[in-house]
Amino acid sequence: MKLIEKANQKALSRMLSADPVLIDVIPASEAIPDLKSHMILHAGPPIAWENMCGPMQGAIAGIAKFEGWSNSLEDAFEKAAAGAFDFHPNHHFDAVGPMTGMTTISQPLMVVENRKFGNKAYCALNEGLGKVMRFGGNDDSVLERLSWLRDDFGPAFGKALRSGDGIPLKHLVARGLTMGDEMHQRNVACSGLILRELAPALARTSSDNEELAKILAFIGGNDQFFLNVGMAMGKAIMDPVRGIEGSSVVTAMCRNGTEFGIRVSGTGDQWFTAPVEMPEGLYFPGYTEADANPDMGDSTIVETIGLGGFAMGASPAVAGFVGAGAASDAGNFTRTMSEITTGENPEWTIPAMDYLGVPTGIDIRMVLDTGLAPTINTGIAHKEPGVGQVGAGVVRAPMKCFEQALIAFAESVGVK
Amino acid sequence: MKLIEKANQKALSRMLSADPVLIDVIPASEAIPDLKSHMILHAGPPIAWENMCGPMQGAIAGIAKFEGWSNSLEDAFEKAAAGAFDFHPNHHFDAVGPMTGMTTISQPLMVVENRKFGNKAYCALNEGLGKVMRFGGNDDSVLERLSWLRDDFGPAFGKALRSGDGIPLKHLVARGLTMGDEMHQRNVACSGLILRELAPALARTSSDNEELAKILAFIGGNDQFFLNVGMAMGKAIMDPVRGIEGSSVVTAMCRNGTEFGIRVSGTGDQWFTAPVEMPEGLYFPGYTEADANPDMGDSTIVETIGLGGFAMGASPAVAGFVGAGAASDAGNFTRTMSEITTGENPEWTIPAMDYLGVPTGIDIRMVLDTGLAPTINTGIAHKEPGVGQVGAGVVRAPMKCFEQALIAFAESVGVK
Repeated sequence: MKLIEKANQKALSRMLSADPVLIDVIPASEAIPDLKSHMILHAGPPIAWENMCGPMQGAIAGIAKFEGWSNSLEDAFEKAAAGAFDFHPNHHFDAVGPMTGMTTISQPLMVVENRKFGNKAYCALNEGLGKVMRFGGNDDSVLERLSWLRDDFGPAFGKALRSGDGIPLKHLVARGLTMGDEMHQRNVACSGLILRELAPALARTSSDNEELAKILAFIGGNDQFFLNVGMAMGKAIMDPVRGIEGSSVVTAMCRNGTEFGIRVSGTGDQWFTAPVEMPEGLYFPGYTEADANPDMGDSTIVETIGLGGFAMGASPAVAGFVGAGAASDAGNFTRTMSEITTGENPEWTIPAMDYLGVPTGIDIRMVLDTGLAPTINTGIAHKEPGVGQVGAGVVRAPMKCFEQALIAFAESVGVK
Repeated sequence: MKLIEKANQKALSRMLSADPVLIDVIPASEAIPDLKSHMILHAGPPIAWENMCGPMQGAIAGIAKFEGWSNSLEDAFEKAAAGAFDFHPNHHFDAVGPMTGMTTISQPLMVVENRKFGNKAYCALNEGLGKVMRFGGNDDSVLERLSWLRDDFGPAFGKALRSGDGIPLKHLVARGLTMGDEMHQRNVACSGLILRELAPALARTSSDNEELAKILAFIGGNDQFFLNVGMAMGKAIMDPVRGIEGSSVVTAMCRNGTEFGIRVSGTGDQWFTAPVEMPEGLYFPGYTEADANPDMGDSTIVETIGLGGFAMGASPAVAGFVGAGAASDAGNFTRTMSEITTGENPEWTIPAMDYLGVPTGIDIRMVLDTGLAPTINTGIAHKEPGVGQVGAGVVRAPMKCFEQALIAFAESVGVK
């Protein structure tokens, strides 16, 4: 087993030495040259149109209309069913996306560069709360917001970032952890820290102050703005951890609303999937569990790097929001997750737990040994297309993914 | 004793129903018409020049030069000793000021209106960290920054505030408590929340984007920016609590670097003073307790309303900064302070303590009954003029103030 320990230490060391910096916002076609017309990247492991859940299909209809590949939502549904679009996971193109996770050629993508290893990762801009495409929303208000993000917000944000040396994210996240964020369901602190870092550059590079005011208000009014930054950061941190021979550390966790998928360092880019579970949580007024879609999105990349449910102890206020019990017990989630991780992150610490580092580097062996599946803080989408978010909760990664992964991993190190 | 309980409930009810809103920034001469040339308002209870500590004298020399009342610091010292300036407490003019607390005619003052009771309170702008006048700094860099605040920052900030309906502070502070601020030695969250509230209005009312960028960077780079807002808020909340017959609730606590003073509702505007104590804390590199000035400033108004040391449980990260022991024990300070307060604030709660309201309304009888003096989180100034901040720590209000106050209070309710 010495080989595995050594490989996992190497994996942990790559995670801890990562230097993620938010450097730009550019059109997806520029960020990902292999992304072409009629290609749609989605959250989670690979999936065919007929197996997609309601909100995922709703988002696809919306983004097809947005890109001008169909004239109406109805037309888009028909075209999708007829095979007019190519579907691929974001993860296959250095990208991630929250919930439905739509990525297409004309959307602006944030670019996070891992300066330690030179790789880049991409994520679309957070649309705000309410009716939004990531939760399956697809009406005119959703598409108009996406147009503004593409035509105004994205270019202005990119210009401001390029005018400086980017925003280093490691220290920013460390501050956020001292301010009650866990960076999955609570991002109010980090969103504010991004705003204060970037506001002067936005002012210096803007020529239309009414538009500038709108941009500042959009960031300032969106408590989840940082989520997508944190996701691109997570992808940028984890990609260099892929393919370390003999490492049993998880490099990606994601869901497409139908299946949950994980990747393990030692088994390369193979997906291990299982039916995704239903979050347990709290619902917005007027909605119940009967309305809920099963768990969805690439956002579990934040748990993969030790944030989200793993950093719950930093965020007692999120415990109530996701229905995870008493706020004062939030630290229990973090303590439990430290039973399935290779180490702690000494730069991302939780003051209320006397500066315990967040549990980092999920080891599939420890998951199976302890029977403790990773805890994920998540948003809950309505199961029908076009509705949007109906709640937030906690969900566990399905144990079956880890069982399959362990079998393949054992084979990879020569154990039958 | 029923009379006193009833009076204290009235005091608490006025505190809890307060509606403080940051509405403007205007020159002190306009805010306080009674403030004239050669008048200098200072922190704490009344004090004569010869009894003032080093940093207070240093700040006075600096502000006299800033106002053009003397040509040099040496000249200002001589003039002050010769009686050329009138000294009064900020508290006598609806104002408060941190540390040395200098308030003079040309300085811009923030205006907080208590919309429930119609009264207003004032505080100068926070200068940032490092060598600053509130810690006794008085060199050219200090005076240049004050000029910029007067000529550029203050007017722009005021214009932006006037373009809207002001920034309501009650909810903003509630959010800050969920983000690790206690609003005395830690204000990073509330400073960011103010920035995001005001940035759009600053953009809309600005005509010079280079200057706008400088203003946004100044707020964004000053983690203590909110302290002075919170102080004006505290004064605006407490002033309507003054003079309630039979109430033993503390309406003000403050220090001038030599003496600590308190006011009690039932005894009106009388000061009860005692020699101020030395904070116990942590010192910046190169400094020790031998360099420290005793406790100073009007900022203890935040403890008077249940924040600062009273809200330590919301801010485990501040415990280490002020040298108050383990971060995980921060809640003990809050629990202890609830033994000397009339009630809790149901709108200002601490998630990590399962939404306990901050202890509110210090009752001098309970202070003496329990022997527990109010705990204050404070900055520490160098004892010599012109140096600046050397550390941060925790200090107790002197018990002697409460002993004297109780004697006068007993007389006020007819007990000899």
